Amino acid sequence: MSEVNIVVGLSGVGKSTVIEEAMLLSDEEYEVINYGDRMVEVAKEEDLVKHRDEMKELEVSTYKRIQRAAAESIVEDSKDQDVLVDTHSAIKSPYGYIPGLPKWTVENLEPSKIIILDASAEEIYSRSTEEAERDREHSSVDGINEYRKVAREMAAAGSVLTGAYLKVIKNREGRAEKAAEELVETLRN
Amino acid sequence: MSEVNIVVGLSGVGKSTVIEEAMLLSDEEYEVINYGDRMVEVAKEEDLVKHRDEMKELEVSTYKRIQRAAAESIVEDSKDQDVLVDTHSAIKSPYGYIPGLPKWTVENLEPSKIIILDASAEEIYSRSTEEAERDREHSSVDGINEYRKVAREMAAAGSVLTGAYLKVIKNREGRAEKAAEELVETLRN
Amino acid sequence: MSEVNIVVGLSGVGKSTVIEEAMLLSDEEYEVINYGDRMVEVAKEEDLVKHRDEMKELEVSTYKRIQRAAAESIVEDSKDQDVLVDTHSAIKSPYGYIPGLPKWTVENLEPSKIIILDASAEEIYSRSTEEAERDREHSSVDGINEYRKVAREMAAAGSVLTGAYLKVIKNREGRAEKAAEELVETLRN
Repeated sequence: MSEVNIVVGLSGVGKSTVIEEAMLLSDEEYEVINYGDRMVEVAKEEDLVKHRDEMKELEVSTYKRIQRAAAESIVEDSKDQDVLVDTHSAIKSPYGYIPGLPKWTVENLEPSKIIILDASAEEIYSRSTEEAERDREHSSVDGINEYRKVAREMAAAGSVLTGAYLKVIKNREGRAEKAAEELVETLRN
Repeated sequence: MSEVNIVVGLSGVGKSTVIEEAMLLSDEEYEVINYGDRMVEVAKEEDLVKHRDEMKELEVSTYKRIQRAAAESIVEDSKDQDVLVDTHSAIKSPYGYIPGLPKWTVENLEPSKIIILDASAEEIYSRSTEEAERDREHSSVDGINEYRKVAREMAAAGSVLTGAYLKVIKNREGRAEKAAEELVETLRN
Repeated sequence: MSEVNIVVGLSGVGKSTVIEEAMLLSDEEYEVINYGDRMVEVAKEEDLVKHRDEMKELEVSTYKRIQRAAAESIVEDSKDQDVLVDTHSAIKSPYGYIPGLPKWTVENLEPSKIIILDASAEEIYSRSTEEAERDREHSSVDGINEYRKVAREMAAAGSVLTGAYLKVIKNREGRAEKAAEELVETLRN
């Protein structure tokens, strides 16, 4: 039987690189699904948006419905093939941390594992070179540490809700391949 | 459509002052409801208690029922007007931290945002000048740090259960007005 | 009416000693139930395993069913007598932290209190003298600190799901009796 695994991590943690590398290293096949992309697709199919930018203009209740529909569509995909969902357990906004895996999403996905890709706040800070990102998400090392904690707390709550294993993998500077190997190993079981 | 927002924070964090200040600064109207007060009102209406002091003598099952009824009565209020609920995500007692926003409460309230007012353990310690409070809740800086962590973890779980945004606002010594401005800004969205 | 209380803690924290000592000190009677043992008993009754070692070979869905059945059997016991469940809120495995009190377990048990027995990472490290355990669970002080945090976050989520009080008791080197006294005091209320 195929399964759903979820990889989360802050922007600047090197998530995309590690996932790509892991997919090259792995003997097994996974459909890698970006949760945000899938939400945009669902919203487009319903003629709610034309472009990704319009997503944030959706009403909260519509947004939550799309979030739920995206989870269902991922579950559909997972019937044929193991799935790796690329997403966030928390998303920083000026109005607070948005839970990326709220109850209805995580309970729908019923993941086997929730895997946190993590790095030190200092590394995340120095990697967030784009000024826009620094302004928006990673304005200080203290702020990043708060963000990391909230993200892990929210992932832990998702684990309790679903029974998913919670794995933390460190992506150390210049050692993305090691993190990728650890990811492959974690997925294998 | 009107909404429910929740403000939580340890005693000594300056929550009342910041909320009052924010209500003066804000262009919008909110009904500020103290959750503990509302519970007492509900219990009085049901002739279960005459005074607030008697609340702690209620049986656990009765207490939980009142907690739930208070949430429902707040939801009722929120139909006419935006509501700001003043409460705690964790309450320290000699027998452990009591969750102030257990599943049934937070799921009933369906908050848009859970806002944590926070301060450093040192500041909270030095503000808890009443001897009784120091004995009861804030006996040491280490103890306050544990309390802060548990309170944030419980708030994060509430956010995952409801999808509420989780915002942390620091109330720094002598800068309550800045915290109040941030609260107004957070509520505005 | 009798009740269920849960004691959790990492291996090396001294949980068994503190519980034993507490049972000697206490005026009240508790049935101490090891959750893992109870799961093995249930699995044996169903002819799923002959020995404890075979538990890890069970399919995930079967494992979860046994986990749930064990909770139900503990609830059955608690009808006649106060129960103290000895378990873990998180179990470290090479594939991630396994939630020891997932939603269905903790909601079934409906505990009055979840009590965390804690010690410093340094103490836990130095107590994990068996080489096997060091390799498997406690390979570094940093690793133990991550484990402690995840375990507390998962316990806090369980508290929000059930309304259980969350108590943290420190078991300091050479002071197990003090921790046992605190445990008795916590259970008394």
